[in-house]
Amino acid sequence: MENSLVMTGGGENANKRDTICIFGTGDFGRSLGMRLLKSGYPVVYGSRDARNSTLLPSGAQVFSHVEALNTSKIIFLAVHRENYDFISALSDQLDGKVLVDVSNNLKVNQYPESNAQYLSQLVPKAKVVKGFNTVSAWALQSGNFDASSQVFVCGDDNQSKQLVMDVARSIGLTPLDQRSLLAAEEIENYPLQLFPMWRLPFRITAGLTVFFFIYCVVIDIIYPYAKENNDFSYKLAISVPNRVFPNVSLILLSLVYLPGVIAAFIQLHRGTKYKRFPDWLDRWMLCRKQLGLVALACAFLHVLYTFVLPTRYSVRWRWINSLIEESKKNKTMQISKVLSWRLDLYFALGILGFALYILLGITSLPSVSNNVNWREFRFVQSKLGYVTLLLCTAHAAVYGWDRFLQSKRYRWGLPQAYMLGMVIPCTVLVLKLILITPCVDKMITRIRQGWERVPKDEKVQTFVNKSSLV
Amino acid sequence: MENSLVMTGGGENANKRDTICIFGTGDFGRSLGMRLLKSGYPVVYGSRDARNSTLLPSGAQVFSHVEALNTSKIIFLAVHRENYDFISALSDQLDGKVLVDVSNNLKVNQYPESNAQYLSQLVPKAKVVKGFNTVSAWALQSGNFDASSQVFVCGDDNQSKQLVMDVARSIGLTPLDQRSLLAAEEIENYPLQLFPMWRLPFRITAGLTVFFFIYCVVIDIIYPYAKENNDFSYKLAISVPNRVFPNVSLILLSLVYLPGVIAAFIQLHRGTKYKRFPDWLDRWMLCRKQLGLVALACAFLHVLYTFVLPTRYSVRWRWINSLIEESKKNKTMQISKVLSWRLDLYFALGILGFALYILLGITSLPSVSNNVNWREFRFVQSKLGYVTLLLCTAHAAVYGWDRFLQSKRYRWGLPQAYMLGMVIPCTVLVLKLILITPCVDKMITRIRQGWERVPKDEKVQTFVNKSSLV
Amino acid sequence: MENSLVMTGGGENANKRDTICIFGTGDFGRSLGMRLLKSGYPVVYGSRDARNSTLLPSGAQVFSHVEALNTSKIIFLAVHRENYDFISALSDQLDGKVLVDVSNNLKVNQYPESNAQYLSQLVPKAKVVKGFNTVSAWALQSGNFDASSQVFVCGDDNQSKQLVMDVARSIGLTPLDQRSLLAAEEIENYPLQLFPMWRLPFRITAGLTVFFFIYCVVIDIIYPYAKENNDFSYKLAISVPNRVFPNVSLILLSLVYLPGVIAAFIQLHRGTKYKRFPDWLDRWMLCRKQLGLVALACAFLHVLYTFVLPTRYSVRWRWINSLIEESKKNKTMQISKVLSWRLDLYFALGILGFALYILLGITSLPSVSNNVNWREFRFVQSKLGYVTLLLCTAHAAVYGWDRFLQSKRYRWGLPQAYMLGMVIPCTVLVLKLILITPCVDKMITRIRQGWERVPKDEKVQTFVNKSSLV
Repeated sequence: MENSLVMTGGGENANKRDTICIFGTGDFGRSLGMRLLKSGYPVVYGSRDARNSTLLPSGAQVFSHVEALNTSKIIFLAVHRENYDFISALSDQLDGKVLVDVSNNLKVNQYPESNAQYLSQLVPKAKVVKGFNTVSAWALQSGNFDASSQVFVCGDDNQSKQLVMDVARSIGLTPLDQRSLLAAEEIENYPLQLFPMWRLPFRITAGLTVFFFIYCVVIDIIYPYAKENNDFSYKLAISVPNRVFPNVSLILLSLVYLPGVIAAFIQLHRGTKYKRFPDWLDRWMLCRKQLGLVALACAFLHVLYTFVLPTRYSVRWRWINSLIEESKKNKTMQISKVLSWRLDLYFALGILGFALYILLGITSLPSVSNNVNWREFRFVQSKLGYVTLLLCTAHAAVYGWDRFLQSKRYRWGLPQAYMLGMVIPCTVLVLKLILITPCVDKMITRIRQGWERVPKDEKVQTFVNKSSLV
Repeated sequence: MENSLVMTGGGENANKRDTICIFGTGDFGRSLGMRLLKSGYPVVYGSRDARNSTLLPSGAQVFSHVEALNTSKIIFLAVHRENYDFISALSDQLDGKVLVDVSNNLKVNQYPESNAQYLSQLVPKAKVVKGFNTVSAWALQSGNFDASSQVFVCGDDNQSKQLVMDVARSIGLTPLDQRSLLAAEEIENYPLQLFPMWRLPFRITAGLTVFFFIYCVVIDIIYPYAKENNDFSYKLAISVPNRVFPNVSLILLSLVYLPGVIAAFIQLHRGTKYKRFPDWLDRWMLCRKQLGLVALACAFLHVLYTFVLPTRYSVRWRWINSLIEESKKNKTMQISKVLSWRLDLYFALGILGFALYILLGITSLPSVSNNVNWREFRFVQSKLGYVTLLLCTAHAAVYGWDRFLQSKRYRWGLPQAYMLGMVIPCTVLVLKLILITPCVDKMITRIRQGWERVPKDEKVQTFVNKSSLV
Repeated sequence: MENSLVMTGGGENANKRDTICIFGTGDFGRSLGMRLLKSGYPVVYGSRDARNSTLLPSGAQVFSHVEALNTSKIIFLAVHRENYDFISALSDQLDGKVLVDVSNNLKVNQYPESNAQYLSQLVPKAKVVKGFNTVSAWALQSGNFDASSQVFVCGDDNQSKQLVMDVARSIGLTPLDQRSLLAAEEIENYPLQLFPMWRLPFRITAGLTVFFFIYCVVIDIIYPYAKENNDFSYKLAISVPNRVFPNVSLILLSLVYLPGVIAAFIQLHRGTKYKRFPDWLDRWMLCRKQLGLVALACAFLHVLYTFVLPTRYSVRWRWINSLIEESKKNKTMQISKVLSWRLDLYFALGILGFALYILLGITSLPSVSNNVNWREFRFVQSKLGYVTLLLCTAHAAVYGWDRFLQSKRYRWGLPQAYMLGMVIPCTVLVLKLILITPCVDKMITRIRQGWERVPKDEKVQTFVNKSSLV
């Protein structure tokens, strides 16, 4: 029977591939068959109605379920979980066969057990392998595996898993072994995820943005309207966002470095590094990269808003108006050296900070960070990161200059937005400064190298311990 | 004989590697030998004149062809196709040997059959494997595989192919199995390609750029010269490009989303998704990523041109001149709230659109898109993509404001460039709006889930079909 | 005994993994054990004091050294080199076992031989494999292998190495075979490296930056102070850096292309490409990518400094002051067409150059350059690179315009910074122009295809040679 199979894409003398059977003639089943045929596999569809072949890829054959599974060692089950029932009847014929569950659900944890585990209960004699569910039908059709070249595979039988991984590899995918069928639940949930690691950073960003937006609207738009009946509502489009984003960016950047500082102080307090950090700190530390990238996005918006400044009508109008006033006095203005210094320093710090920011962003690209060793990664992300934080905080401080002393700046007694924005960054910098003073640094280094400050009754054990430390 | 081979780079107790034979002492042959020696392979060159060894890497040995091929299971044939003749004479000695064809041609499809297939006709007993032709001699010498760490390998004998892939792996390359020797043609054409996927997007871009450039020159430079004898030729350097690039960018971005919209309407019309799209639509869909990246490049140029605006002499001159006029009237100007709002909104929309644009660009980097699942990729590239298109179109609309109503703006009856630029984006947005209205969306979702609107006589078959759909 | 081991993370029907033994209960040992347990390996620690298990990951067992190594084929030695002595006593029990040395040193080449080689001298019967030293304990704990998913592995026994690489793969790392134990020295030095390829480019950049900074301070700040007692010290923050960075960037970019030009002239002079280039040229060529990226960073800073220009107080002050002077004359100014052209051309060239610069930067990202073939990579990095250099040099030349003719510009007889900055770029462009003239280009192409201009007595051999050239 195998000899009668039509082959496409290969030649007479091509390597013989084993026939592959697909149950299910839906979108995914057809696309998978098409891709397998292109890679030289003979493909047989199993269907209730064997005449039903008009829509299938040319080159494939259609048989009844039983006939189809006899042609092949590997059967792909491209059917929704709700339609798994028919498979129980084939239980005996599936003995020893590799049954690949490619199904996805519509919701995370939709059923008590994963589809693959449910399947293996229905046909206990078959060797169930989970996989291919992360690949889309469209990607299989077009061969364009941009977002889904990785195929997670799991199963309880090593050899079957290996067979399925070989198939994945030969059609251009990268299989990743996720071990036993217990992992099927995670694999089935994976394609339903939407940036889980970004959720916390986005929530923090949204919260900060909303807060600063309302705060700046109150101070810059409502206050002048209430007090002097001035309508500055046009500031909503650029002026207010350009106060919100730099502050949010600076706070987010400092939140990248805060957990590390807190961890160091916890270790100092405990006198050991061999106790687990609280859960919230662990979660925080794992999303530092995402926090940093959102901070970079905010800084980028701030830069764009700032560069557009001199082109803005209202800014030009203000400058020109102040000039007309000046020219009426009919005398040459003197340049203010202090103002020159202050504003140029303000810009220079911002520019250098932003350039380092971009560098941090580039080194967190997967392909770049994979090409540096641990020491280099830490040098950029930690050392250069702190320099970035320092430059950006100084940028904000020079912007503020002596405004925090001028009581008229406190509208309705409220401090300006930039002051609020500097609280956490300054705290982080001060704490870091404490940590790098020689005596504290020495202590923390000793703790990180495995030293422990122990109560007396545990001392003996620790000495034993230290002899085999790495 | 093998014992007499000199080894470099390894030690006494290094893993023994099998001797590898190279026919051809040209640039590639030498570089390959050097790299193999560095990785611990004993290397033997086969040459007509065995004394000819002055230029070969030290550590290699040179024998006659027959002697050389007796030392090794694998023979690399680093010789131009025109010089393959000598190999026929060695046909018997090559029985069962793995013969690796590394040759390239000067033109795509230069010969009726691939070099590797031609070779396998010359020596039918040898197991011919194609590969290594995508690696440059310089990369082999320097070990710097920046642009060519991937080695496509094909051949009709699986074991021989595996041997060659192992050699590739052990000298630091990443072999990719391309199956049977039929693939040799494609592999030989690959290094001769020059951005084939970018050709269509570049042609469209070039066409649009030339059209808009001429159009803007006519309207902005020739018209004032013809009508008022004003010489605005200096606008060629920045003003005109800064009208061309935003329009080209906006049109290209809309061309990224147009094929998806067309496809949806085709499916709606056909009532099924199981018919192939026309070829032009398939080709168009496959180059959407490239279209988007060129659009981003144009947007980037537009941003740079805009930021440089206030520094330009002619712009400064215009502002200052208008100011002098104003100051002569000797009264304080009133700020126009409407103008403030309009211009600030214009900038804000542009900035947000550009930031999202950049985000789309970053997520199409291979290393980033490989780390997101299909749902995330679609969320960014489709959802955020439409938001970007909407923001950028609104940016253009606010720029235009009520100008399209002012008849004096139609120089020689021609609409302004921005109006032309908005036609396709607006069309795409309107069509998309139709597609996401609840009733149409429901229909298209059903079709995409496999539902088919069928003529009566086909109905039975479809019901059978649906039972096994994924 | 193995049956009594506790397993976590797997299930009853999970694939059985072999027990793995770890000597050393320090930070690395604990983290490795935790990760192995999570991947389903039973883990046994060997310790002097078997009761010492409070700090170890739950699920692991602790035995004496001898007991522990009897449970497993693979023993990870997570102990500092200074504490290797105890292992000699276990020499007999380690016969045939795979002993993995994961140690790192504090300094490059700290000891005469690598730790792994030292270990294999201590226990000659064990099969020593070096590896895992590039992974950090924190990465093992968190499973976050951002900067260190690659594991270099070497060893003299192929099978043992394979076993260790399989373990690496199954805990989510990417093992890279580095061959014999001789490579251990390099592997041990790797994590201690800090951007070795960037050192030369950084030194050149630092040197150029310091030179231009001092030069500009002398010309722009000290000269006016000495001659006219004008205090321009505020220029230190932005004006001076914005002269330094464009010049440094342009020189660095030209240094990317200079070695290629020099190499071509050397080949022309020698009449062959089969002689090695001098060492300094080889080193130079290998750091071209890094030179280019630093050049891009400088160009980026230059762009930021330029965009901030019109917002700067001192610039606004100068413009407004000149305007007041003008308005006093009470007549309408005429726009200077030449000035408009010149400044717009200056900006346009800079913008196009910068856009190409960015393109060059993007194509040197590992994930991008891995997806282009050699011809495409060379097209971008060489052809487009020269266009970039040409545009940027023209940008500088238009900036200078006729200033080099004005003697008053030569303060203290010194040329302006931009003139110094243009010397090397112009040289490179002129040399390249010579190389692409038809007759020279033909010669160099022939040499690169393997042709040699030989003295008469060597001619015979060369003809033989050419018959087998690729």
